[in-house]
Amino acid sequence: MSAALLPEQGFPPVSVSEAGALFEGLSDEPALLVAVSGGPDSVALLALLAEWAGAPGRPKLHAATVDHGLRAESAAEAAAVAALCERLGVAHATLRWEGVKPATGLQAQARSARYALLAREAARLGGATLVTAHTLEDQAETLLMRLAHGSGPSGLIGMRARTAKEGVALARPLLAVPKARLVATAEARGLPFFRDPSNADQRFERVRWRETMPLLAELGLTTERLGRLAQRMARLDTAAARRAAEVFSSAKLAENASGEGLNLRFDTLAAEPEEIVLRVLGLALDAVAPQGESYARLERLEDCAEALLAARRAGFALRRTLSGCIVSLGGDGVLALKPEGQRRRGVHPATS
Amino acid sequence: MSAALLPEQGFPPVSVSEAGALFEGLSDEPALLVAVSGGPDSVALLALLAEWAGAPGRPKLHAATVDHGLRAESAAEAAAVAALCERLGVAHATLRWEGVKPATGLQAQARSARYALLAREAARLGGATLVTAHTLEDQAETLLMRLAHGSGPSGLIGMRARTAKEGVALARPLLAVPKARLVATAEARGLPFFRDPSNADQRFERVRWRETMPLLAELGLTTERLGRLAQRMARLDTAAARRAAEVFSSAKLAENASGEGLNLRFDTLAAEPEEIVLRVLGLALDAVAPQGESYARLERLEDCAEALLAARRAGFALRRTLSGCIVSLGGDGVLALKPEGQRRRGVHPATS
Repeated sequence: MSAALLPEQGFPPVSVSEAGALFEGLSDEPALLVAVSGGPDSVALLALLAEWAGAPGRPKLHAATVDHGLRAESAAEAAAVAALCERLGVAHATLRWEGVKPATGLQAQARSARYALLAREAARLGGATLVTAHTLEDQAETLLMRLAHGSGPSGLIGMRARTAKEGVALARPLLAVPKARLVATAEARGLPFFRDPSNADQRFERVRWRETMPLLAELGLTTERLGRLAQRMARLDTAAARRAAEVFSSAKLAENASGEGLNLRFDTLAAEPEEIVLRVLGLALDAVAPQGESYARLERLEDCAEALLAARRAGFALRRTLSGCIVSLGGDGVLALKPEGQRRRGVHPATS
Repeated sequence: MSAALLPEQGFPPVSVSEAGALFEGLSDEPALLVAVSGGPDSVALLALLAEWAGAPGRPKLHAATVDHGLRAESAAEAAAVAALCERLGVAHATLRWEGVKPATGLQAQARSARYALLAREAARLGGATLVTAHTLEDQAETLLMRLAHGSGPSGLIGMRARTAKEGVALARPLLAVPKARLVATAEARGLPFFRDPSNADQRFERVRWRETMPLLAELGLTTERLGRLAQRMARLDTAAARRAAEVFSSAKLAENASGEGLNLRFDTLAAEPEEIVLRVLGLALDAVAPQGESYARLERLEDCAEALLAARRAGFALRRTLSGCIVSLGGDGVLALKPEGQRRRGVHPATS
């Protein structure tokens, strides 16, 4: 079942004590659900977690494999993972992606279906924390892809080590670990694993970035550098987010009379750096008409914040529609946000 | 004098009104010194500035060319720029880089010599603002190079549109303008220009990045995206810098008894996000023993901040040497910084 591979030179297996440090943040979870595709990364994660969770007082460990039904071998691979889990003493479930598969955007759809299935399984287990085997390389690729999609600095955070998705807590303890060390870990333990052929399919954007990484590394832009940047960006973003939350709370006046919107003292915002103005405006929009982050939303926010600041400097009133909200700045310096009426929502061509 | 070039398709010349918007921030300067190498970017900048500065009430315009004396043609090229300036009615000086040229690090040394010569000329002109023709491509390359050198998020700001260097105010009004538009500008006006052969010399890191840009652009990571990221990073950095300055000022207790250091209330810092702790520590170090930013300094700061926070949580005292400073955290939560003694400065192997 294992592909023939050269030993990964210079990349030692992850040691038991290293694994202990990587999993330290998971100690207080009641239960963990590790997602195991059968690739070297997730097989190594499974084995390291099984060993770690065997000590007393540790979370109960479960595993699940999503059978996407896209390749003839997928059912057999899921069965092989189930057999490995049995050998390691870990409860395992195979989750099948049923229904029609899309002709385009397959990778994105498969990812979304995978998360939904795993989230449902985690909920079924009474709220287990989902643990995935995303590696340093996955992180570096994510960062470059977000950059290439026009992300702002927040995109450079890449994937977060801890987050919540579809109502499920998600942990990625291996984001700083090179993939080669996980391959070495699986090999050193004689664990069987597969290589998913779609990992080399040039039609996928991620694969094209993956193949560009060696060239970037030659120029000094290594996966380690990108991974370190992601950590530093997360640190910087946290500071800006906290400051924005403070300013939002001190600028917030009250709900609108309708109870559907909110009012802000705009002069409190205008005294802050532009980044904070933008973020507070974003927080206010999220409170009134939640839409989720997107690159287009960031650009609309930038545009609106600039117009508001210019209007306030000139002493003008301003009214705009922005991401499902009506934003109006009065001559008294009060910024009112309320949701657009159902009738107009999403049909305002210039601004929504 | 002009190299034969295909017209840059799809890249229109910079219009007079666009130039007006690009130079708007320069209106209040008493005098400008534009650095003109004779390449298309700086020749276009020269012509656009000459036209703009011709209107009443605008700054007095000067130009200068640095003759590095590295190529046989350099003196003739400087003379050709002087002739062009005469035609445009702009006072011009040729500044010669005298002395022995280094065998290694030539590009960095030449840049440093060039800035020193231009700074001296700007000072001689009574404090003119130096204007350079750095383009969007230069900005994108700078950003990638800093990333590749292990920079933190601040490196992604790239070059700033306004800054001060060697005591001279420096403006880069073309950082968002693609080079092709400047070539088109020079061509549309029939201006003569050169192509510096070192711009294609693969020995230079910048050139290697330049040649990688088309591949990155194919993957979506265009110079425009990188330029936009630089602007957004500058905005985010400004917010963090301002917050750090506020916290520094509220945590600062007094100078040390020696008058050479300062004391901080560490608990004020410890209540802030990690990014702010780091930046305040950096500000304190700069105040006590200025060293300038570097990637290595950032890593030492990160390491020291982590140790200080851990010590404070555990209620321990801590003493460290960091970038020429002795940093000590007392059991009372006061963080004292003082410069290392002359005798030891720079010879502490582990930490300085």
